[in-house]
Amino acid sequence: MHPAAAADPAAGAAVKADDRAHVFHSWSAQGLIDPLAIAGAEGSYFWDYDGNRYLDFSSQLVNTNIGHQHPKVVAAIQEQAAKLCTIAPGFAVDVRSEAARLIAERTPGDLDKIFFTNGGAEAVENAVRMARLHTGRAKVLSAYRSYHGATAAAINLTGDPRRWPSDTASAGVVHFWGPFLYRSAFHAENEQQECERALAHLEQTIAFEGPQSIAAIILETVPGTAGIMVPPAGYLAGVREICDRHGIVFILDEVMAGFGRTGHWFAADHFGVTPDLLTFAKGVNSGYVPLGGVAISAEIAATFETRPYPGGLTYSGHPLACASAVATINAMAEERIVENAAEIGERVIGPALREIAERHPSVGEVRGLGVFWALDLVKNKETREPLVPYNASGAANAPMAEFAAACKRGGLWPFVNMNRTHVVPACTVTEAEAKEGLAALDQALTAADAHSV
Amino acid sequence: MHPAAAADPAAGAAVKADDRAHVFHSWSAQGLIDPLAIAGAEGSYFWDYDGNRYLDFSSQLVNTNIGHQHPKVVAAIQEQAAKLCTIAPGFAVDVRSEAARLIAERTPGDLDKIFFTNGGAEAVENAVRMARLHTGRAKVLSAYRSYHGATAAAINLTGDPRRWPSDTASAGVVHFWGPFLYRSAFHAENEQQECERALAHLEQTIAFEGPQSIAAIILETVPGTAGIMVPPAGYLAGVREICDRHGIVFILDEVMAGFGRTGHWFAADHFGVTPDLLTFAKGVNSGYVPLGGVAISAEIAATFETRPYPGGLTYSGHPLACASAVATINAMAEERIVENAAEIGERVIGPALREIAERHPSVGEVRGLGVFWALDLVKNKETREPLVPYNASGAANAPMAEFAAACKRGGLWPFVNMNRTHVVPACTVTEAEAKEGLAALDQALTAADAHSV
Repeated sequence: MHPAAAADPAAGAAVKADDRAHVFHSWSAQGLIDPLAIAGAEGSYFWDYDGNRYLDFSSQLVNTNIGHQHPKVVAAIQEQAAKLCTIAPGFAVDVRSEAARLIAERTPGDLDKIFFTNGGAEAVENAVRMARLHTGRAKVLSAYRSYHGATAAAINLTGDPRRWPSDTASAGVVHFWGPFLYRSAFHAENEQQECERALAHLEQTIAFEGPQSIAAIILETVPGTAGIMVPPAGYLAGVREICDRHGIVFILDEVMAGFGRTGHWFAADHFGVTPDLLTFAKGVNSGYVPLGGVAISAEIAATFETRPYPGGLTYSGHPLACASAVATINAMAEERIVENAAEIGERVIGPALREIAERHPSVGEVRGLGVFWALDLVKNKETREPLVPYNASGAANAPMAEFAAACKRGGLWPFVNMNRTHVVPACTVTEAEAKEGLAALDQALTAADAHSV
Repeated sequence: MHPAAAADPAAGAAVKADDRAHVFHSWSAQGLIDPLAIAGAEGSYFWDYDGNRYLDFSSQLVNTNIGHQHPKVVAAIQEQAAKLCTIAPGFAVDVRSEAARLIAERTPGDLDKIFFTNGGAEAVENAVRMARLHTGRAKVLSAYRSYHGATAAAINLTGDPRRWPSDTASAGVVHFWGPFLYRSAFHAENEQQECERALAHLEQTIAFEGPQSIAAIILETVPGTAGIMVPPAGYLAGVREICDRHGIVFILDEVMAGFGRTGHWFAADHFGVTPDLLTFAKGVNSGYVPLGGVAISAEIAATFETRPYPGGLTYSGHPLACASAVATINAMAEERIVENAAEIGERVIGPALREIAERHPSVGEVRGLGVFWALDLVKNKETREPLVPYNASGAANAPMAEFAAACKRGGLWPFVNMNRTHVVPACTVTEAEAKEGLAALDQALTAADAHSV
């Protein structure tokens, strides 16, 4: 199943040389990075040119929900490439029609029209445009501790430090605080109180911003990179009710949480809430071909029935991307991959992480659903002081860097953000793979423990 | 070479039914469109399910520079799919390294670092971000009669009506007028005067906006959808000099004009000008897989050597997209496709269009380079009144709609925008195909002539 990595350091060095000469890397100081050259990948693993194989507990950027190189998806891409690689968005094409139908059949409620993009940021850009035109209002509310993408509107909505360098205060975005009991903005003592106070805070923010000036509220159903804070029961239903009362469009961003990650097709399914717009990308085809999109309610679609929708892109509904989405969705259904994510999460990962937390002084909290888990690492369990300061870099971030290095030495590729590590393997992860990764994680956490009391 | 279309109307109807039920189309009123269902494509042609084959004189959205289903590019996608579909941007990968090197070897001057995106809009978003951070300034100048993409920053830069519904006046964008002798903003009588006056206008605009507040000037090297206005000799060199004098970053947008379209690898090659940033997409891999990017000068790359570049996307440098770019660039070089575009344009298309213009009262001007030509259609050659008003729709646009319908009846798929038709076939177009399309165009222009005097 997983071929041992055949070492070929010379080939790896050549790949690296051209990379350093010509590839400008995202989110990086170009002179301070040392990208690992990757030779191949399969299922839950990838390997380099030096004979090292890694268990991928990050699913790359939390996108390979179906694992690496799923044979049905690879075959579908190859077949579609032979048939029709590209066609303009204005035409109707079999795989575009089928992908839209398969997605619409799975999205909650009446979100039955699909606008395709190349990725998550463009999905958010278009959802916001739809909301603004549908309501005739300009302002959009989004949460601190969130990520919505890196194009202009999307990065302004983002509630983490990646926003700061690109921030334009005039973009009509207002940030508020979502529920997060472990680090409560509301001094709450339990989930119910956190939920009530978070909803009251949102109500107050809306009152002071002016309800009739607000086009949309956008939330990640379960915030992802910002920390996998599963919202308390009632919160999303409360936001839905607030939106309805004020004529505000409710956008749920499921770019990371959607397509099986939480153990349901969509994270919204856990909460019985239907937004007006739902953005997706990543898991829709595990990123095998760039693809994202917006699922649109009947009411918002009707706004653009006789009035042109003013947005688009050359590769909207790209045939290769749609073919890979069709194969991915069908394989996930046939092989019960969403069910696997739910079952491994509930039966294996969740219990193991809670047990790990008891034994490690650095693990402050464990939270998650499906194959979407976070460990909140702390200096001290009582004070909950984060293991590293917010947005730390360099020496201040050393404890997390040491932890990440320890994971890699143990053959585990971790997802690390600020003072957290996320356990986000493929939705296809087996019990044996999960246990292998959890053991490596357990071991690596001793590096974090060294900075905790 | 080009299989006759096998009619299968029932299959086409099924594709259409799912499309109308679930696909939300770009730039459209959903209830007023009737998308043609496409069954296949090869080379310069595509066909529907009813047995109709079309010669593609639009290259879809001016992206299939290498034609449909080029066998070397199809094979490269299939091989890469078998090897590695996706990997995160933080790693080094053979095809990503090679694509960056092949592009950097062709871009002008020292534009040797490549930041990959999924398409042109994201390329523009990131180029603007780089310029703003490099200069520490906020404002960006762009031209009326331009298109730069549909994400928030890109659409604000755009200088055509697609900007209006998404416009946010606060986005730090100022529009100015570029050179366009046929419809001169400067009352010029010849190209040299147009050039001088356009540069003086830009100088004045900069003086009144404040040079030290301006991060960048962005121009399509040859504006595309806005009308294929080839800039007069000296204009781009003049803008380069103005930028240098004021410390302004010069961005050339070659999303449409790059990769062979004008008969050179880049349109900038016609003018001997090197920008600081160059955006590309479309022709880089003919859109077979979504891909775009920014080529970055040594000076701007150095800004992000020890300071992190704050932008990125999940699919930056996507392996399938990069593999298709490598195969496309190599095939274009081996098969002398850029040279073909230059030669067919100069020897066949240009002369034929000029001859057509003499015979048709509706053709006001012919302009272009390579396989990138515009016919400016008019009611009257003396007054140059456009055949339809700016941004016309419905009944006011009937003359152009009639012309487009006549093209399609003649087996030609035209590119139509406002009062113009663009002749933008694949760079691989043969002399016989070009002549077939030009004959159909000649015929269809009688429909436009009926509205001209």
